[in-house]
Amino acid sequence: MKLDLKLLKNIAEEVRRGVQPLAGRVEAGRVVGIGAGGDLTKHIDAVAEEIVLNMLKTYEVPCTVVSEEKGVVEILGGNSNVYLIVDSLDGTTNALRNIPFYTTSLAVAGIPKLSAIHTSLVADLPSGKIFSAEKGKGAWLDGEALKPSKTQLVEEAVLTINISANTGMVEKFGRLISKTRHIRHFGANSLEICYVASGRLDAHIDFRRKLRVTDVAGAYLILKEAGGFIIGEDGRDLDSPAEHPSIRLSLLAAANMELMENLTKLIP
Amino acid sequence: MKLDLKLLKNIAEEVRRGVQPLAGRVEAGRVVGIGAGGDLTKHIDAVAEEIVLNMLKTYEVPCTVVSEEKGVVEILGGNSNVYLIVDSLDGTTNALRNIPFYTTSLAVAGIPKLSAIHTSLVADLPSGKIFSAEKGKGAWLDGEALKPSKTQLVEEAVLTINISANTGMVEKFGRLISKTRHIRHFGANSLEICYVASGRLDAHIDFRRKLRVTDVAGAYLILKEAGGFIIGEDGRDLDSPAEHPSIRLSLLAAANMELMENLTKLIP
Repeated sequence: MKLDLKLLKNIAEEVRRGVQPLAGRVEAGRVVGIGAGGDLTKHIDAVAEEIVLNMLKTYEVPCTVVSEEKGVVEILGGNSNVYLIVDSLDGTTNALRNIPFYTTSLAVAGIPKLSAIHTSLVADLPSGKIFSAEKGKGAWLDGEALKPSKTQLVEEAVLTINISANTGMVEKFGRLISKTRHIRHFGANSLEICYVASGRLDAHIDFRRKLRVTDVAGAYLILKEAGGFIIGEDGRDLDSPAEHPSIRLSLLAAANMELMENLTKLIP
Repeated sequence: MKLDLKLLKNIAEEVRRGVQPLAGRVEAGRVVGIGAGGDLTKHIDAVAEEIVLNMLKTYEVPCTVVSEEKGVVEILGGNSNVYLIVDSLDGTTNALRNIPFYTTSLAVAGIPKLSAIHTSLVADLPSGKIFSAEKGKGAWLDGEALKPSKTQLVEEAVLTINISANTGMVEKFGRLISKTRHIRHFGANSLEICYVASGRLDAHIDFRRKLRVTDVAGAYLILKEAGGFIIGEDGRDLDSPAEHPSIRLSLLAAANMELMENLTKLIP
């Protein structure tokens, strides 16, 4: 079968069925290994990823999976023209706490590169809402076309910044934070970028150099197809090889070019 | 009629019916006045508050309402033994952006003081979930008893801090933030405090001296009845007169005493 949006939706729905009963449960947080991306794999992560891999086998989809937990996995002998870049569960800490912000993120590319993604989906698991995109065709939330906001001024923007942990982010973003009135941080990058695509947020920033390509891939195409912008720390359009989950990124996602420029002026 | 939990739930359900169709809509953000708490009143705020006041009249509840928008309102001649401290819509910015994190907060007290609240409710409007409490009887989420977490170490805690705007918070919380791995900020104090009560979050901090008693009253009793702790900037158990919405507060809400002490050590 083809890895089209219909199949991606089926996979996400199956992950949702498996993950939702585990949300907020102690046993879901049991450490079961170390993922290919370098983080501890929790029981709930392993359950989600197992479902994705099994669905690909059940639907007989030869492809190369790049995933946070198991790294690179060839399904049915692999297919060097079909890469599936997967974060089966983005926002694990939220899911373990029953905080309703976590997703499954799935992105399909012809070569393992963010800019080569042609079909993608981010499923908001607690609500069941589905963000999706196809290259050149658009981006949607449950079938409705997405449009980023027109907010240009930092003073009026609602934005998310990840400042957790001892990563120098507090110093780096001090000036920006002092200008804003509406900082948020929800704790699931894929969903925060989809919120920028849909006009719920005006921007999302994570400069910790800790993001994996698997966290970003699904939302990347959704934001671009919606008409938003996404750049790296160097100020250029974000792109990255995606052949292994150990690759790390920083990014700034913004609703429009003017806001992006106004934000970057405030970041040293 | 008596302002018991059953009636508070009816009121919240009616607010939900009125507010949900407005969420994410441009006309909902139209400024219609300045509230008694000092903030701009948006159309969606006015709609929510009007529903609360009308319900009190319809159900014939003589009481004194202390609310964010209209200030002090006597219903059916008032009742000096029944105060209803109301934030009809906490998290207005989220509601206007369709970010699913905003509430109605209702608290009943015999005298206008936080510590005199005996019955309260916080309704998570997007999900329809209801947090509630009765003094001496407990706190519940949709009927299930609430219990805060046992997390004692800052390094393991999931916590929310409001650092928005130029309020010196970035400097004040720099040391604390550098110790944590899981900072969040959702943008509706009443719900963030209820998350601490329910073990979803370990702590919530807002030291901007901008919170109103109306923002805090509903969640205050819910956290206390669940067994959590809530202190002011002076380190003492939080209490405050609540006879007018212009009174401003800072607070630290924590799941347990040990975590509260570990957090306060890191705040200059």
